[in-house]
Amino acid sequence: MNAPRRGFDQQEFATRTAAAQTKMAETGMAGILLTTEPDVRYFSGFHTLFWQSPTRPWFLFIPATGKPIAIIPEIGADLMRRTWVTDIRTWGAPAPKDDGIGLLTDLLAPLASRGETVGLMKGHETHLRMPLGDYERLLAGLNGLKITDATEIVRGLRMVKSEAEIEKLTYICAIGSRTFEQVPEIAREGQPLEDVFRSFRREGLAQGADDVPYLVGGADTGGYHDVISPPSRRPLARGDVLMLDTGSNWDGYFCDFDRNWAIGRADDASRRAYDVLWRATEAGIAAARPGATCRELFQAMQKVITELDDQGGDVGRLGHGLGMQLTEWPSHTSWDTTEITENMVLTLEPSLGYGDGRVMVHEENIVIRASGAELLTKRAAPELPII
Amino acid sequence: MNAPRRGFDQQEFATRTAAAQTKMAETGMAGILLTTEPDVRYFSGFHTLFWQSPTRPWFLFIPATGKPIAIIPEIGADLMRRTWVTDIRTWGAPAPKDDGIGLLTDLLAPLASRGETVGLMKGHETHLRMPLGDYERLLAGLNGLKITDATEIVRGLRMVKSEAEIEKLTYICAIGSRTFEQVPEIAREGQPLEDVFRSFRREGLAQGADDVPYLVGGADTGGYHDVISPPSRRPLARGDVLMLDTGSNWDGYFCDFDRNWAIGRADDASRRAYDVLWRATEAGIAAARPGATCRELFQAMQKVITELDDQGGDVGRLGHGLGMQLTEWPSHTSWDTTEITENMVLTLEPSLGYGDGRVMVHEENIVIRASGAELLTKRAAPELPII
Repeated sequence: MNAPRRGFDQQEFATRTAAAQTKMAETGMAGILLTTEPDVRYFSGFHTLFWQSPTRPWFLFIPATGKPIAIIPEIGADLMRRTWVTDIRTWGAPAPKDDGIGLLTDLLAPLASRGETVGLMKGHETHLRMPLGDYERLLAGLNGLKITDATEIVRGLRMVKSEAEIEKLTYICAIGSRTFEQVPEIAREGQPLEDVFRSFRREGLAQGADDVPYLVGGADTGGYHDVISPPSRRPLARGDVLMLDTGSNWDGYFCDFDRNWAIGRADDASRRAYDVLWRATEAGIAAARPGATCRELFQAMQKVITELDDQGGDVGRLGHGLGMQLTEWPSHTSWDTTEITENMVLTLEPSLGYGDGRVMVHEENIVIRASGAELLTKRAAPELPII
Repeated sequence: MNAPRRGFDQQEFATRTAAAQTKMAETGMAGILLTTEPDVRYFSGFHTLFWQSPTRPWFLFIPATGKPIAIIPEIGADLMRRTWVTDIRTWGAPAPKDDGIGLLTDLLAPLASRGETVGLMKGHETHLRMPLGDYERLLAGLNGLKITDATEIVRGLRMVKSEAEIEKLTYICAIGSRTFEQVPEIAREGQPLEDVFRSFRREGLAQGADDVPYLVGGADTGGYHDVISPPSRRPLARGDVLMLDTGSNWDGYFCDFDRNWAIGRADDASRRAYDVLWRATEAGIAAARPGATCRELFQAMQKVITELDDQGGDVGRLGHGLGMQLTEWPSHTSWDTTEITENMVLTLEPSLGYGDGRVMVHEENIVIRASGAELLTKRAAPELPII
């Protein structure tokens, strides 16, 4: 598979912005102010790792009509000028006394004086990426401005991917699948888990990932005990179950899936757990069709999981949305009634507890098409593979 | 150099917590509520990449006396139990209707009823990592609670590193230096910059980094034009100046520095810029002594930079603090009068604009000792090296 073209046509950003503006008009918002990397990138195409530095805030404002307006540190001006955004207002950040607040005030004051409403991301899975003190000072200077939650609008757009986004997601999932196929060459009895992690990251890069920022996992006799730890120096031993879970990315889009292996030999309990999760995933693939809800998808997987575990593990959900972030809305849980629609990209992530405090997780990535789920990841082996 | 031990002794967390509590008592805070990865890790030792998923909030509360209290998703309970924290309160996240807010309310209600004050990180270079809507609902349910800014306290502690922290920073800076030494083997005329980035990341991992999450840079004829872009597919060409700037990490601590090379031959303007920045860095190293201020450090470097560029470039500052984050307080700027003290770890990062819109950056990492600055990075060559 050849690499897709990086970035997007300007038309993609125009379409996204117009779709947001239609929803804004329906709900009476005069604008949306965005502060996080994925939200700013989604509407502007501004793509830089510089967000890893927490020092500077960055803002993108979606007005009621027209292109987004960037209010950003001067250091980002050159890169922003290469996007479709043309109204770029900059200041010499960092400047604790006025880190963009003056520019934002100039932008929003006319709206405040008319008593208009501006949307901010205030809902689930969001946060405000600017100093809380600056936010309070900004509002204090904008008498009359009403703030509302724009999460529903942005969530609704970002959950359904364009073909160009799906192409990038397909590409990184294929890279992830090839990387996992190399694990039997990478992971051997006696090798410290920390070294397995390092080799996996190097392999992911060699296979074409831009980066492998997320890698967690575990290995222990007859099963691992948690799924979010950094690796220990403990050497892999015969009888271990090894799990690696990666979020690798390409051009700003993520895969997010995991694989399990037994080292030397597999114990019966782990084989059984693996089988249940493999079939739970099958049930999830079958249930993931346009018109179904996330709750139904959850129930389809949970029904299989309860053969072995009626606790449902402790990971809180059985999968989620995937795209510019490792995890996105929606959630496959009993409380999420989001309707699954064509061109959503989702993870299926059944998990269970077994034995004496052991857990097992499985994960695949899918895209929803008219006819149902299509796998983006190369399906895990039906039986726990032995290295 | 052998790898230091991972993690910290419990005593380190006890010392950090006690120091915060002393300051809290002085300023009348009954507690500090922390929400971001580095702040939570600093006081608890809780270390996981799972924070890359934006879905779940995590909270650590520093009470007036005693150990911190963790209010976290159940998925993190196993890992948190391995830290020194013993009071761990969990919920089955994600749960949009109550993502920890009930537990936080239970914890803070007694303080609210006494009209006490709780600190939050509200200042420069911070943000609140939880949904803004949840924060507003939390406060609405805590009548009488006063909120104040705890940035000064946490900043004051985190800016001055312990010997165990300095050991980790020394280790990752050595890894970074070895990685840069391999660039002449990695980067060749005709190689697309994207491939140079991928090879550099793989080399950093091979040299012992846990990860190379931050890598930016540029390459263009006679100099690069911005310093925050992702790499292009443009092949390196004779006459280019190539710059790579990495934030690699080990056990949760970062190096952050860059290097420049000319491909095939170096033009006079770039040689000159390089020489000015190399000498500006020397001036910074000489000025970085206990008792000096960040402003004085800035002025010492700026004095050399103005030989060539009186604009001071557009990157906003000439270096910053370094530790658990790629960039931390303080800032080497005209407005930052922070006094430099022993055991601060800092970057020196002079930059300048030259020619037709070109920029050049240099960066070294230092630790402040009683006698002055000690380099953690292997000093850049005094003349622009040619590959």
